[in-house]
Amino acid sequence: MEIIDIAIIGNGPAGYSASIYASRYKLSNIIFGKLSGGTATQAHSICNYPGFTEISGMELGQKMEEQAKENGAIFSPTSVMDIKKDGDIFVLTTDTKEEYRTKTIILCTGTDRSKLHIPEEDKYLGRGLSYCATCDAMFFRNKTVAVIGGDDAATMSALLLSDIAKQVYIIYKGTELNGDKLRIEKLKEKENVSILYSALVTGLIGEKKLEKIKLSKPYNDSNELELNGLFVEIGSEPNNLLPNILGVNTDKQGYIVVDNEQKTNVEGVWAAGDCTTNSNKLKQIVTACAEGAVASNSIQEYLKSK
Amino acid sequence: MEIIDIAIIGNGPAGYSASIYASRYKLSNIIFGKLSGGTATQAHSICNYPGFTEISGMELGQKMEEQAKENGAIFSPTSVMDIKKDGDIFVLTTDTKEEYRTKTIILCTGTDRSKLHIPEEDKYLGRGLSYCATCDAMFFRNKTVAVIGGDDAATMSALLLSDIAKQVYIIYKGTELNGDKLRIEKLKEKENVSILYSALVTGLIGEKKLEKIKLSKPYNDSNELELNGLFVEIGSEPNNLLPNILGVNTDKQGYIVVDNEQKTNVEGVWAAGDCTTNSNKLKQIVTACAEGAVASNSIQEYLKSK
Repeated sequence: MEIIDIAIIGNGPAGYSASIYASRYKLSNIIFGKLSGGTATQAHSICNYPGFTEISGMELGQKMEEQAKENGAIFSPTSVMDIKKDGDIFVLTTDTKEEYRTKTIILCTGTDRSKLHIPEEDKYLGRGLSYCATCDAMFFRNKTVAVIGGDDAATMSALLLSDIAKQVYIIYKGTELNGDKLRIEKLKEKENVSILYSALVTGLIGEKKLEKIKLSKPYNDSNELELNGLFVEIGSEPNNLLPNILGVNTDKQGYIVVDNEQKTNVEGVWAAGDCTTNSNKLKQIVTACAEGAVASNSIQEYLKSK
Repeated sequence: MEIIDIAIIGNGPAGYSASIYASRYKLSNIIFGKLSGGTATQAHSICNYPGFTEISGMELGQKMEEQAKENGAIFSPTSVMDIKKDGDIFVLTTDTKEEYRTKTIILCTGTDRSKLHIPEEDKYLGRGLSYCATCDAMFFRNKTVAVIGGDDAATMSALLLSDIAKQVYIIYKGTELNGDKLRIEKLKEKENVSILYSALVTGLIGEKKLEKIKLSKPYNDSNELELNGLFVEIGSEPNNLLPNILGVNTDKQGYIVVDNEQKTNVEGVWAAGDCTTNSNKLKQIVTACAEGAVASNSIQEYLKSK
């Protein structure tokens, strides 16, 4: 079986950038992943990626994927489920039971959406409850929706929804929205947006689909709010399956600890993008891309020295 | 006089990205610099900036400048020559004797081209000797030229020149060209490119303009090589004027030492891009942009906490 130079696990911006750099160093590489473009594809409008005044996450992801392909990337639309060592070589097994042999690995596994962790959360998923406004906003045309959260992901979702839904509530535990101030200003100017500060969602109510939510404090004299859709945008957490299998060190929040070269504590394993401790944990497309480039450059030096 | 939030010193990718992020946080910012786009504009073909399969440095720089402007950047086409403190405020003086007052600074001062440091180098500048193939290649149509160096900048320049000049020599002290392997392959396939390994240029000869160079070892039985143009592409060094004035720590090679947030040792002063120790010193447009974003995000937190 052929041994590839780099297995890039995760097909978001970090993975694409790592692949582009690897290919240009003539290092063979395979990108593993199902949701092309990673979580970035969920952003309906990106204004801060240098080079594009405004672009959707979907379109930017496609451009990067295309660029990676043109430079020589191979894509495996699978999830890596297990990794074993065979001497110096890593043997990867996918969810489709395929095996791949590789000299090095870059973990670009990103993050998963944080859940509310309240009763019956899973029951309403896809029945009024969503973790992705970009994916599901269109189901709520002229309906009433609420967004939970107060950071960039929440304000971006609320702004998108305000153009589609009849009424948008933002429910936030804090006392002031955070992040991109231009977007917050736009949001506050919208007539169909109301913001409930210092409020938590404590329960979900509805027969077959979500009809009401319970609030930790009254709004218009009621602790219940009627709505059709609820968007949970309270952050995200790294997925620790592969770091655990590999013995890769993570910090208390589960982020992969990397050095200046994006190297982990395990020889042959690098990490890049939202899942790492680098870039001051600023989770941006441009920082993910930079980390991917640094990782591939470091691997090029590593393989040359072996 | 108005006090701005951030003075961004340097108008390359790091500066533009820092400005885009700053503006979106509603932080007032001025970008100082003369050569719009920084050294990146000297790259005639960029294939590894994620999002663009191929773009010139000039065009990418213009896109970022435009984006910074649309988000609210103000541009000062000057060089900052001196910085003094007035309480918590920094007072900047430009080469046009204008003064600006700012709460924080991001140094995005990049690097300057390394010189050969051989006799009469300055005499031949613009008379056959150049430090920028993108700027000057067109003066050498159907002429004989040499490129000194063996890394990405040198191979990129040589490839550009091979389409314009009659004959291109690459003179490199090492035994193998480094960097982007796809480009090296292309270069080696060119019939009008010859590579002299383990060779140094030790002297420059010519009446009014450069006519010949002296080599450290013979080529075709001669230690002299006749040519019309010589391009020096042996790397670059950070400019330490402003770090010295501010008391900012640099490493042995003169790179500004920054932490994970791009902060320097001096309160109120950040740095981003090619001039810093971050991104494993990989000098790429995407790493410069990422560092600019991280710096502005860190300043936003800093100003909010004051």
